[in-house]
Amino acid sequence: MRAMRIVGPGKPLELHDLPIPKPSGVEVVIKVEACGVCHTDLHFVTSQILGARYPFTPGHEISGIIHDVGQNVKDFKIGERVIVYPHFGCEVCKQCLRGFPNHCENPPLLGFIMDGGYAEYVLIPHFKYLIKVSDSDPDEAAVLTCSALTAYSALKEAGLENDDLLVIIGVGGLGTMAVQLAKKLTGVTVVAMDIDEKKLSLALRMGADYVLNPSKEDPIKFIKTISENGAGADAVIDFVNNSETAEIAFKMLRTRGRHVFTGMYGGTLTIPLTQMAISGIKLVSGKIGRPGDLRELVSLYKRGLIKPFISKKFRLEDANKALEELKAGEILGRAVLKP
Amino acid sequence: MRAMRIVGPGKPLELHDLPIPKPSGVEVVIKVEACGVCHTDLHFVTSQILGARYPFTPGHEISGIIHDVGQNVKDFKIGERVIVYPHFGCEVCKQCLRGFPNHCENPPLLGFIMDGGYAEYVLIPHFKYLIKVSDSDPDEAAVLTCSALTAYSALKEAGLENDDLLVIIGVGGLGTMAVQLAKKLTGVTVVAMDIDEKKLSLALRMGADYVLNPSKEDPIKFIKTISENGAGADAVIDFVNNSETAEIAFKMLRTRGRHVFTGMYGGTLTIPLTQMAISGIKLVSGKIGRPGDLRELVSLYKRGLIKPFISKKFRLEDANKALEELKAGEILGRAVLKP
Amino acid sequence: MRAMRIVGPGKPLELHDLPIPKPSGVEVVIKVEACGVCHTDLHFVTSQILGARYPFTPGHEISGIIHDVGQNVKDFKIGERVIVYPHFGCEVCKQCLRGFPNHCENPPLLGFIMDGGYAEYVLIPHFKYLIKVSDSDPDEAAVLTCSALTAYSALKEAGLENDDLLVIIGVGGLGTMAVQLAKKLTGVTVVAMDIDEKKLSLALRMGADYVLNPSKEDPIKFIKTISENGAGADAVIDFVNNSETAEIAFKMLRTRGRHVFTGMYGGTLTIPLTQMAISGIKLVSGKIGRPGDLRELVSLYKRGLIKPFISKKFRLEDANKALEELKAGEILGRAVLKP
Amino acid sequence: MRAMRIVGPGKPLELHDLPIPKPSGVEVVIKVEACGVCHTDLHFVTSQILGARYPFTPGHEISGIIHDVGQNVKDFKIGERVIVYPHFGCEVCKQCLRGFPNHCENPPLLGFIMDGGYAEYVLIPHFKYLIKVSDSDPDEAAVLTCSALTAYSALKEAGLENDDLLVIIGVGGLGTMAVQLAKKLTGVTVVAMDIDEKKLSLALRMGADYVLNPSKEDPIKFIKTISENGAGADAVIDFVNNSETAEIAFKMLRTRGRHVFTGMYGGTLTIPLTQMAISGIKLVSGKIGRPGDLRELVSLYKRGLIKPFISKKFRLEDANKALEELKAGEILGRAVLKP
Repeated sequence: MRAMRIVGPGKPLELHDLPIPKPSGVEVVIKVEACGVCHTDLHFVTSQILGARYPFTPGHEISGIIHDVGQNVKDFKIGERVIVYPHFGCEVCKQCLRGFPNHCENPPLLGFIMDGGYAEYVLIPHFKYLIKVSDSDPDEAAVLTCSALTAYSALKEAGLENDDLLVIIGVGGLGTMAVQLAKKLTGVTVVAMDIDEKKLSLALRMGADYVLNPSKEDPIKFIKTISENGAGADAVIDFVNNSETAEIAFKMLRTRGRHVFTGMYGGTLTIPLTQMAISGIKLVSGKIGRPGDLRELVSLYKRGLIKPFISKKFRLEDANKALEELKAGEILGRAVLKP
Repeated sequence: MRAMRIVGPGKPLELHDLPIPKPSGVEVVIKVEACGVCHTDLHFVTSQILGARYPFTPGHEISGIIHDVGQNVKDFKIGERVIVYPHFGCEVCKQCLRGFPNHCENPPLLGFIMDGGYAEYVLIPHFKYLIKVSDSDPDEAAVLTCSALTAYSALKEAGLENDDLLVIIGVGGLGTMAVQLAKKLTGVTVVAMDIDEKKLSLALRMGADYVLNPSKEDPIKFIKTISENGAGADAVIDFVNNSETAEIAFKMLRTRGRHVFTGMYGGTLTIPLTQMAISGIKLVSGKIGRPGDLRELVSLYKRGLIKPFISKKFRLEDANKALEELKAGEILGRAVLKP
Repeated sequence: MRAMRIVGPGKPLELHDLPIPKPSGVEVVIKVEACGVCHTDLHFVTSQILGARYPFTPGHEISGIIHDVGQNVKDFKIGERVIVYPHFGCEVCKQCLRGFPNHCENPPLLGFIMDGGYAEYVLIPHFKYLIKVSDSDPDEAAVLTCSALTAYSALKEAGLENDDLLVIIGVGGLGTMAVQLAKKLTGVTVVAMDIDEKKLSLALRMGADYVLNPSKEDPIKFIKTISENGAGADAVIDFVNNSETAEIAFKMLRTRGRHVFTGMYGGTLTIPLTQMAISGIKLVSGKIGRPGDLRELVSLYKRGLIKPFISKKFRLEDANKALEELKAGEILGRAVLKP
Repeated sequence: MRAMRIVGPGKPLELHDLPIPKPSGVEVVIKVEACGVCHTDLHFVTSQILGARYPFTPGHEISGIIHDVGQNVKDFKIGERVIVYPHFGCEVCKQCLRGFPNHCENPPLLGFIMDGGYAEYVLIPHFKYLIKVSDSDPDEAAVLTCSALTAYSALKEAGLENDDLLVIIGVGGLGTMAVQLAKKLTGVTVVAMDIDEKKLSLALRMGADYVLNPSKEDPIKFIKTISENGAGADAVIDFVNNSETAEIAFKMLRTRGRHVFTGMYGGTLTIPLTQMAISGIKLVSGKIGRPGDLRELVSLYKRGLIKPFISKKFRLEDANKALEELKAGEILGRAVLKP
């Protein structure tokens, strides 16, 4: 089978010919229909990552058709369309046993430790990671598994009450999904913040109550102005998460506010300790999501409550081109590979 | 009545003669039996505090006998011994309406906005802030209302599971209480950290499983060594909360660990944003506690499960001396004034 | 002032002339603009209630203008329009201290122990029970405080996840509000059940995904048919709560399902003990709601997310007529008195 | 290998000779060191159970040595001592995906659907169900997996606060463990109720604050007498769970009390609907426990905080004798088979 593989840091992906994997026990092999192109993939291509064993096949936002199953697989049959929960756990660490494979302490990561979806076929280690999406669009369904899931999980981490003011920083693929989800699933007031006016227009169409361009007006002042008694935001989800946005996010918060950190751009935030002790503010991670979250999300998608936005499709062989466009900021919403 | 009052920043407290307050409606006047001497009082004496209106009477760890009641007071009678939940709320802000007067956005603070317990009598604005402690020692009972309550609440914020490793930084009045409470009320393994060997001995007597002196050994290395797979601590409560301890605390944490900030020494902590996004770590405040928490704590105290440690008693007129000894670090556990 | 009062069980309300109450301390007197007519009022009129001291003024769904304030009232001024959280707590019992005045063990009930809103003026014991609704319709706003609040709270008790199937039994004032709230604030699938086809049509207009008339089809079979793998409902809120509906509700439930009991029609439910032990089913109360819930609800109402349905208005003197029509089932949504 | 198997309802177990199972993939085969004798086993022997396929090997409280591993097993090696989380899930139902395999809707039950531990060897379908207990007593460790786990989980379901009054009904193997756990891990006051004075003496030794024999005094009256203001119990865990005990439990409850149903003796409870709607009472299941709960319990056991009570050991061939003694009520604490 064909696979586009990472052969080393900073090098273009190479097209390799590999044997189709063979499942045993509880394993499943999927014929990939679509694989989302994620910033994490870009990160794996451009940087030297601790623990990487080259070459490997990236790609963790996968939809496809079941091609073969191990002898202990139940409830799934050859020919069914499925998507894949991507953050496999080791099954034995404290976080896995408590039901948080997304925080596994030794994860066999799909598209990194285990070969991923930039290929015609992919091996999944357990059928429990699959969710059926028989009648769904495979491109949209693929994107649910990581970008939509992370947005959904971040909303849960924000601990929202229905009279809250929520700020969403960064209206990319995750941010647009978060705006949709917040407006469909809660009663909160949503402010979308971005420096790109086109993205802010999109946020308004998706239901945002306010949009805020920090290159045009002081974001802290804006939030104080629109919030009750000038108290600030009850929650901020920062999908950019660099030194600048994190500082803005922190300063926007009201007493007992929640600051959700999502994104891997790097940078730091310096927090005053006395304020942390008396403000009731919570700083929390938003990392992917749990298997049950994906189940809920698929249900919402199937019933038409949300719709991922796929702007571009690439052939598998054009994976390098897709990654370049992503790097250049030319992809709105999400792009998918079509092996 | 006699009252020791703060007349301005940096000045010694002065003995004033004031009229005994008269309660109306739901108010109660208490004849003070004991008032704890807290670092917050010292802070009010030594620093220029925003919003202070001089002169005022400090003191918020109060036990005493009900001297007089307003016409709408129920369930409390003249002559009963009570303690006072100290963090009065404004009753109408979002946090008060959600049941968090300890995070009130406009609090009429006892011992700051409202005259406190460094006096023979004190006016309490609502009988709901009182809890009966009829047969209890008034000195010990007084101390439950702030130092023990803060320790108890910090433990709740730490979100402990029974197989967790908990580090308690700072074995002063709050830290010793936290060690006691953690060992009595949970199954966690407790590490007590301090630079004072006498305090570490005390922590061992209170039940700590390990003690750790960071001036003698590398605290991060120590925690890695004793923790499961070198993973680190599941939770750290930092009762010192300065730049040094906060950094140690943060670095000790395991995946999904909780860092509870308690204390007003100032300083900052710089956190790496990518780590915040992927580690599952939570940073939270531990501020005093909620009224229901104090109710639970009094129940534990009355049944002998915990015992505050009172090392010194002062006459009301010696309040300046008490504060000097507190500043000099000469008070073990807690001191009380006896008006 | 005029007041329509209950003078004994089974007797019509009588028009009395009473002095306008005078507030002191934290009390407030409100000039009533609207008072909802609730089934609880009817219950007080028709039955001998333990603890009743005749005569008394019923009515607990109150909106109005602040007429006078005690000397310790803050944040509220004469002339402001407000509504009243109706379930005053004793302030000192375990449930009050834990933030559940709706479950107070000794409540000074508005419209029963304390004179209520079937009058020109009403005394409220603490300004904390008021919420400002300056620009709102006083009739709609009044109804938020009990019928809408109970529906909202019942939804919270149902512990919904976004892929759940929720059944709402009884599409009266509470049921219609619950349908609206569930569709606006969650992603669940909603089934509305009632024996009145007009009410089912209303439920569909309010957004219900399915309607179910148990006089026309087997409700258990219906739910099995539409639920995933025939597993049943994840949650049922029973606003009728009589022996028949409770049995249907219980039998509809899926593993780990929640059964919310709301309503005072009486009757019993017999549950099999082995099933209770192994099914993971939870049986819970839905009683009014907490003060923070009303705050959220008012926010939703002001932003236009929900709208109570007021079908009839009566003069104060026509309170008996209003109660008769309520008894006869002639009131759609809610009726209000206009003193 | 030897196995004692159930060949039909009402028949004695028979000794069969079976091939030692062979693991593949993520499967593990364990050489059984001890298998607890549980009431559920007795139930399987004496009753016609829906879904039973005879013959099968019962036994689900298993400790042993890893004999063989499939090629995809990680973190576990041949020769290690382990115990087995017994409630395998189907991995794909809603409850499994939400982290509740103990409420799996289609469970491949160990000792019923899958052959259990009344045998020399047992096949476990996934290494994730194993927990290492290298230096522990295999008899005590075996018993952690079901009877201790159920007691621990029931305590969690009881939602205890530290000033609560908890009643534990039935001081058998589960009840004694629950008393120990409640006193070690919380600050609640514990009342143990049983009709056997010897068991009540045992409860006192385990730390119960009160014991109550309902054949000697009115249990409702007793609880009212010792509870705050006669309000009743905050929580009752009923390990007997028959019609008599369930009614007593329900009537003991205070406002917002929790009633935990654990046990399969059958019978019914009739609840008044108005009381359910207004009391704030919760009725919940206590079924086994979750994998993370067992992890915590093993940690508590290894650190000496709890100790299961094993009163008798039988050879595998004497399984029928063990079950007879269990049926006759002659087993204190727990008995184990020693294959």
